Formats: sequence, structure tokens, C-alpha cells
Amino acid sequence: MEMDKIWRVNLSDLSVKSEPVPAAWAGLGGRALTSTIVAAEVPPTCHPLGPNNKLVFCPGLLTGTVAADSGRLSAGAKSPLTGGIKESNVGGTAGQMLAKLGVKALIIEGHPTDGKWHGLYLNQEGLRIEEETETLGKGNYESVQILNERVNKRVGVVVCGPAGEMKMLTANISVKDPDSHIRSIGRGGLGAVMGSKKLKFIAVDASGATGMPIADPEKFKAAGKAWADALMAHGVSGSALKTYGTNILINILNEAGGLPTHNFTAGQCKEHDAFSGETMHDTIVKRGGNPSHACHPGCVIQCSQIYNDAEGKYLASGLEYETVWALGADSGIANLDQIAEADHIMDDLGVDSIETSVMFAVAMEGGAIPWGDGAEVLRVLKEEIAKGTPFGRLLGAGTEAVGKAYGLTRVPVVKHQAIPAYDPRSVKGIGITYATSTMGADHTSGYTIATNILGVGGHVDPLKKDGQIDLSRNLQIATASVDSTGMCIFVAFPVLDSAECFQSLLDLINARYGIALTGDDVVGLGKYVLTTEHKFNLAAGMTNKDDRLPEFFEYEPVAPHNAVWDFTPEEIDSYWNF
Amino acid sequence: MEMDKIWRVNLSDLSVKSEPVPAAWAGLGGRALTSTIVAAEVPPTCHPLGPNNKLVFCPGLLTGTVAADSGRLSAGAKSPLTGGIKESNVGGTAGQMLAKLGVKALIIEGHPTDGKWHGLYLNQEGLRIEEETETLGKGNYESVQILNERVNKRVGVVVCGPAGEMKMLTANISVKDPDSHIRSIGRGGLGAVMGSKKLKFIAVDASGATGMPIADPEKFKAAGKAWADALMAHGVSGSALKTYGTNILINILNEAGGLPTHNFTAGQCKEHDAFSGETMHDTIVKRGGNPSHACHPGCVIQCSQIYNDAEGKYLASGLEYETVWALGADSGIANLDQIAEADHIMDDLGVDSIETSVMFAVAMEGGAIPWGDGAEVLRVLKEEIAKGTPFGRLLGAGTEAVGKAYGLTRVPVVKHQAIPAYDPRSVKGIGITYATSTMGADHTSGYTIATNILGVGGHVDPLKKDGQIDLSRNLQIATASVDSTGMCIFVAFPVLDSAECFQSLLDLINARYGIALTGDDVVGLGKYVLTTEHKFNLAAGMTNKDDRLPEFFEYEPVAPHNAVWDFTPEEIDSYWNF
Repeated sequence: MEMDKIWRVNLSDLSVKSEPVPAAWAGLGGRALTSTIVAAEVPPTCHPLGPNNKLVFCPGLLTGTVAADSGRLSAGAKSPLTGGIKESNVGGTAGQMLAKLGVKALIIEGHPTDGKWHGLYLNQEGLRIEEETETLGKGNYESVQILNERVNKRVGVVVCGPAGEMKMLTANISVKDPDSHIRSIGRGGLGAVMGSKKLKFIAVDASGATGMPIADPEKFKAAGKAWADALMAHGVSGSALKTYGTNILINILNEAGGLPTHNFTAGQCKEHDAFSGETMHDTIVKRGGNPSHACHPGCVIQCSQIYNDAEGKYLASGLEYETVWALGADSGIANLDQIAEADHIMDDLGVDSIETSVMFAVAMEGGAIPWGDGAEVLRVLKEEIAKGTPFGRLLGAGTEAVGKAYGLTRVPVVKHQAIPAYDPRSVKGIGITYATSTMGADHTSGYTIATNILGVGGHVDPLKKDGQIDLSRNLQIATASVDSTGMCIFVAFPVLDSAECFQSLLDLINARYGIALTGDDVVGLGKYVLTTEHKFNLAAGMTNKDDRLPEFFEYEPVAPHNAVWDFTPEEIDSYWNF
Repeated sequence: MEMDKIWRVNLSDLSVKSEPVPAAWAGLGGRALTSTIVAAEVPPTCHPLGPNNKLVFCPGLLTGTVAADSGRLSAGAKSPLTGGIKESNVGGTAGQMLAKLGVKALIIEGHPTDGKWHGLYLNQEGLRIEEETETLGKGNYESVQILNERVNKRVGVVVCGPAGEMKMLTANISVKDPDSHIRSIGRGGLGAVMGSKKLKFIAVDASGATGMPIADPEKFKAAGKAWADALMAHGVSGSALKTYGTNILINILNEAGGLPTHNFTAGQCKEHDAFSGETMHDTIVKRGGNPSHACHPGCVIQCSQIYNDAEGKYLASGLEYETVWALGADSGIANLDQIAEADHIMDDLGVDSIETSVMFAVAMEGGAIPWGDGAEVLRVLKEEIAKGTPFGRLLGAGTEAVGKAYGLTRVPVVKHQAIPAYDPRSVKGIGITYATSTMGADHTSGYTIATNILGVGGHVDPLKKDGQIDLSRNLQIATASVDSTGMCIFVAFPVLDSAECFQSLLDLINARYGIALTGDDVVGLGKYVLTTEHKFNLAAGMTNKDDRLPEFFEYEPVAPHNAVWDFTPEEIDSYWNF
């Protein structure tokens, strides 16, 4: 078993070194560690694509173990989209392999000026850096195939797509899933940071790694069993997500009047059946796809899927509700095949499918693309964004950039990042999360939909202001902790509903490290993470004015509830009363 | 003689009303009044193109009188480019006519949603609003001709050009000069604010107005004579500007190593002779143009000019150093005819020729336009920006938008507004002005070039940090006062060098209003203006982190002095020790 290490790679001088893990970082993983390192080492006012930003990868505290759903990898940096600190995490296989190789953190530094690109190869012998040419400009699916052949089929891959090479603000970082499909470190333009350092990929080969050190194997085994059982027993994590994926939410949010439609001008979409989770499930089954697919080994929730085209040929995987919503309802493309193809192209280019698809709706409002024209969206993805034409550059800069270029006032962003699939006027808790999250508008950072809509962890009326700030605060704190464990955020459903489930998660961490964390410690960790991130954002120049929704939510009521955003600035600011 | 009034026009309900001047506003004019009204009535966090922004026009305290160079008109609003408060002022004829009609302030409010455009007609009978169609989409030169015919030849015109109609962030507001050519309320995207209110023009007919009320006509006459004599006696305002225009600075800044070249990668430009003020003067004379032209009646400095093409046909007027620099040196277009044609098109479209031309250099660095390709710049202006194509929309959004779309780190902006024609590494005083100005990067807000380079008002070594902060502060305070008088900023040259000249300016104001301002009062007014603007910006969400130059100035030394930007944050912040 490997001793955990910190690895540093500098792309300016091509140096590589490993360091012991500082004591202060030993108990941290995932988001807690990426945010700690970014806050400690990146000047908050630096240019995100300049020499002083760093890109940090950290497996979670349990990543690499056999605990169910523990395979997440976090990435962190100063975001070129939000201008603040960013953490985004992903499944796939690379995180588990990095953990098995004893990589506590991989810190990418520097800013090459000679135009050369490089790739990193990590295995049991260490880390080496090599100049790269073959995969440059290639789509992510092809890059993964090339690395499968160059290293071996089981190699874990973290890759900067064509959009990241072009340093587009919508660029994400992609990872390979067990079937060599693509999962995404989606939000905040981290692909542009990787591209600014001219790092094309990280290939992780854990062959020969002997497994993770577990302080108390018996306890770990028992906790792991209780944990997996709890995940399977819950209606959302054990059944709904496996059958319909996250896209089960289309009909639920439409019913709730919180499905933003045609660039947030309505809360319900007439054509919702055309792209609902139910329709998607039936289509997948009919065409011989797979509605239940794990994005990383050990996942029991299996919200991913394999979506085939009408001829039964693979078209896309990992179709998320937010992407389907943004193309289907928000942009009016009532065609699931076009949505799936667009999703596939976005994965291949390496662009955030939320930022990009919300941007399409804004571009439609501006008149750059006809409303609901899926064929034109596909053309624009392939012919403009992929090729970096001037039009593609504009669209690749994201929702706010397009809104500004067309002089629009209805531009759904917070901290310059696109607002996802839940209208904050009719689901007010999520509005507090959008406004206050250190990450910019981000539903995953405090998913009040659970309690506002799904009845998980109690119920808070989505249309009233009462209780929303406490709800969002508690969920954001819990999420910051979960994001540090390496667990998928969907474990939050059973954790919120079951004290035993939460205890088994604590037991897993305690058994892994031989420690004795309590529930209070987890809350403390979450608060530490959020406070660290908030301090960075303030030092970068943000203020409480950045914790606000766009003004149009205040003066444009949305059907069917005729709801407006009506929190006062003082109410929103009370979120930070930790 | 008219009693001064405040006029309000609301484009939402098409209401028009006049109000008496509040006592607190009586002693204010120009920038002091626009900034006071914007700070009092515009919510700092509102969307600049939404219903809650207001666009305010105020003649200066002396505008409309016969005092030399007193014809400026100020416009103010929340800027869609900087996100902060904005004042920009202009010559031309409309300001004097507004003053003669007793318009202390014209406040444009509301946000029509029915798609209709309107025009305003002001004359001795009052103000009326009419739906407008004929001038929509037309260039500013044609719109002025249409209004000349529709009203009368002497009508003053304030017009929103095609770029403003499209709400481009580079859009300015244009006014007519005495020859029906165009002058610009240039910076900060105020044309987009006018466009967001669907106000196409303001036509001001001062026929029959009997002149300005002067409290002490004898004293005013004597002071006016001393004032004009002092302007004429100074080398810069009385001679250099009249002969060469502001473009005299090309060779001076090149010699000083402060002429930013090829997107701020060098401080000298080999081809400077091709577009210098001397070359421009000789070309104008040879082709039968006019090197000395007044942008408004009563101007004795006459820095404007009439530039003809090779066939002797009118091509452009009011070619400023900053525009010539940005196209000639920064974008590498060493062709004065192409520069003049581009300037003419920018005037006709109504885009800020600084923001737009600095943007071209950034677009060239990004690869969107070949370096130095004047023909392509002309094509892009006519075929892309003018037509609002997607490429045109990207470019029309300005320097920062293009820099972000192309993932660049060398993006010369402060508070999202393009840095003009003086390198802050080699002329450090102007860097303090760029950083701290409430307006975003703006040379006119505290023109340290006077003292750093031209030896006006003493000398402060441009390459050393010593004295720059005090210099910039004193000049910004003085400028905020001058911008409130209605005087052209070029009066600052003699005012800085001559106590008698300054006294004659005080005498003019005192004789006009029957008051007894002292030099200290003028300093107090300047401080009041800057403090009011700064408070607005802080309330809009800015912090001291917005008072910073782009990071690349710190780590990229510029030839020939190998200078970097080396002020600490604390040093810059000491600017605000008023």
C-alpha cells in the first residue's frame, strides 16, 4: 500500500515532485482539500488563466475504498467563469485509481509560454510528464480511445477537451467512465484552466496497486454493508434514480410549476412529455440501451444510462435532468434524440452542458438561434463552437457573455454562472442556494429540491419564504462535507431521511482512518469548507452584492404561481450567520 | 430668459413633466449633477439595461454662456460596461441649446416593453415625445440630416446610433457638431442605456431663446476676456492642439516609451510616423481639409479637424489621439486613411472608438482578425458590427468580452472598460488614474500625462512611483470640478500652469450665479463628486479589488524601459485618503 503523497507538476519548467502530506491536510479530502489548497496557494486576485492559478485534483476521503458510491474526484482552482473559488467533482474511474496510487492531491502549476502541450502519466513507478501532440484538437471520446491503446484499457483518464484547449469559459474537464464514455467535472470553466496550462490529459494506471489502507477492516466491512443497504432501501437513491435517472425530475418540476421554460419566462412546459424521464426510460428500453448504469465501480444508485439512437447505436450516456431541461424546456427543443445528440457532442467537446444549454436559451432570446431549433443547435455545436469560429467563441464564453452581447436583461446567472433547472421564484429554497453558494448558481451545492419538492428530510413549502434560509444553509453545510468524503451527492437522500444511514457513513470514515468523528464534526467540516471558500471569494473582490439573483426575478412574476423573488438583501445575508 | 427646470421623461408610460430645481441641485451642473441624480435615484444593484436605470443629461454650470470652451454636456447613468456610475461629456451644440432652454437636467426613465421607439423634441414651447420610425437603423450622419430637415438646420441633436439600438456595450451617444458632423459621449456604453429605453434621439431647438441669465454681466465679460486670453496664451491649448489635434501625442508618447503597441506588448511603435499628428496635419492641409476646427461654438482651442480622403472628399472629423493610437500602434494599422475611415464608421454606428479599437487589438491577439489588417477591420465594422451578426455582437460587447471569449490574459481593462493610449508601466501616474477612477480606465478623469510627460503643472518622473498617487488624486479632484463647469477638459493645461487663468474661471462662475466660490470650494466640489461616485460603486458591489490594473502589467515588463506595474494594493488604496 502506498503512503499518501502530494504531487506537484509545474508546466512552466516541466518539474515534477512529491511531498509528504502536511499534518493539517491529513484529515481532509475531496472538496475540503481542493478548497484548502486553492485558498492557501492561489492569490485570490490573480487572473484565472494566468501563471498564478493552480489546478488541484483530490480524491475524497473514502475514494478508492469499496464503500458504495465513494468514487468521486474533486477538482479545484480559481474559476475563470465565476472569478471565485471553484470545486467540481465527478465519478468515473480516475479518482479511485489516484487514491489507490496514494495521491492525496495532484497540484498543477505554472503557465507554459512555448506553445507545447503535455500529458501526465501516473502509475506505481511515479509520475512522468511527456510532450503531447496526437490527441490535440481531438474529441474526448477519441482521446480516451487513444489513451486506452497507448497505456491500457483500464487506464483512468482526466482530459482537457477541445473547448478547454481553446480556453472557453464553458469548458469542463472530462473523465472516463468504466465503458470509456465521458463524465464531467462540469462547472465553472475548469477545462479552461487546464487548457491555460497546456495540460491535455492525466493518464492514471493503478495496475498492481494493492488497495487502500483501512485502519479497522472489520468495522469498515460492517459499516459498508449497512451503508449500501441504506442506499438501496431509499425510494430516491434505491429505485427512482436507477429507473429514470435524474431526468425523473422533468414531470415533477413541471407539476410543481418550477420547470423554467423559454429562458425563464414560464414555470411549466407544454411539451414536457416529449423529454421526461418516463419517456426517456421507455425509449432506452425499446432501443436496447441500458436505463441503469454506474458511472464508477461500486455505485449502487446507477443514475446513468446508455441511450441509443433509433438504429440501436450508442448515442449518449449520463443524460442528466439539468441538460435535458435546459435543451428541452428552456430552449424549447422537444426532441429527445436531438437532446441526446447535443449532450454527446458537449461531452465530446468538453463543455459544461448546463452552462452551454442555458446559454442556448439566452442566445435564442437574443435572436442568434431560432427558438427550439434543435438542428441549428447541433450545427452550432459542431460547426461553430467545436471549430472556435467567432460565433463559437461568443457562445463558448457562456450564458452571461451571450446575454451581454445581445443587451438582454433576462440573463439567468449568479456569480456569472448559469442558473440550473429549478425556478427560484417558485422553489424559493433553491434560490437561496443559487444566491449564496460560494460556487455561483449551483443546485448541487445545497439541493433544497429534496425538501421543497421531494419530501426528503421533511417538507418546506417551496412558495413561501419561511424556513428556506435555514434549509439551504443546513444543506450547503452537509453538502460541503459529503463533497469531501468522495461520496456521490445522491447519498444525501437516504442520509437526510435515516440516522442509521448517516451513522454508517461516519463509521466508514472512522474505520478507514482509525478516528472517531461525530455528526458535529461533519457539520464542523462543512462549515470550515464554506467559510474557507467564502473568504477566498471576498478576497477576490466579491461582496454580499454577489449573493443576489438577477433583478428580473424580482419584477417578472412566473406562471403558474405568479411568483416573484421576494427575499430582502438582509434576509439573504443572514445565510452567513453560521 | 427661462427659469431652470428639471425635465423628466418616462418611456414606459410616455409621460413628460417638468419640476422646479431642488435647492440642493441649484449649485451643481454637468458631472456633479448627473452623478448626484444617478446616486440619488438609481438603485446601485439594478440591471443597467433594465427598468430601474435612468439616463441623465446635464449642461455644465457655464454651458450656454459665451465663455470660451464652455459648451460641454454631461450624460450619466449606471454603466452597462463598468457596472458602476458613469459620467461622460461632449461638445457639439445640443448642450448649449439645452442650457439656453433652461434645462438644468433631463432625466430619461422607464423601460418600454411594446417595441416602439420614440424621439424627444425640446423647444421654447416645452418638451414633447413622438413615436419614431424613420431614423431607426440609420447611421448617425443620416439621422442628423433627417432631423436637420425635419426640425431645422440649427437643431441640436443627441442620438442613439445603430449600436445603441442593439444595446451593444461599446455603444456611445452621439451629438451633432456645428457642421452636422458627430461628436461622442463616448465611454461606458451609455448608448446601450438610451437604446434600452428605446429613445432614438433628442432634438433641441433653441430658436428664440434669449440667452443665459448672468448675475454680474460686467464681471462676466471681463473674466471671459481674461479666460480666453489665458487659453490662447498657453502652448498646449493655444497652439499645439489647434495645429495637430490631440494626435500630437503619438510622437511624444512614442519617444517616452509609453505608446502601447500590439496589445500592450511594447511601448514604442516603429511605424509611428505613418499616423502621427505631424503626418496627419500635413495630410489634412495637402488635401484641403481643416486642421483646426471647433466642436462647439465658442471653442478657441479647436483640437478637432476635417480630414479629407485622397480625392479631397470629407472622410472624418474629430480624430483623437486615443483612436489613432489604438488602431495605429495597438492594432498595427499603419495607415492613416484606414484609421480615419474606421473612425468615421465608428462615429456613424455610435460606438466608443477607444473601447472598440482597443478591442480590435485584443481580437487580433486572439486570432479573430489578422494583425494590422485595416481592410478587415473596416469590413468587420461595416459587415459584422453594423449588422449585429454574431461576430459583430461579440466585438460590440467590447474589449473584456473579446478577451474572455478567446481565453486571453493580456486584456487591458479596469472595471471592465478598456485602457487607453498610455502604458501605465512606463507612465505610472496614469496607471493610478486608471486603477482608481470611479469611471473605469479613463485617461481624462485624471490626466497625469500633463505632468508626467508634458511638463504642465510641474514634473513628476513617469517611471518612478514617487508622487504619482498625490498627482492623480489632485488631478482627479480638479477634473471632477472642471467636468461640472461645462468646460472642456483641455482648459486644464492653462489652469494648471496659471493662477490667473484659474481665477478667471472662478470669476466666470461667480459672475454667472452671483456667488463667491473660492479655489477651496472647487476642490470641495471635486471631492464631493468623486466621493458620491465612489459610494455608488461600492453600493453596486465594487471593492478596492476593482481599483487594480490587470495582473499582466505586474509580470510582463514593457520595452524600452523594461518597466512593470509595481504599486502595492495598499499604496493604490491610499488614493482614497481624501
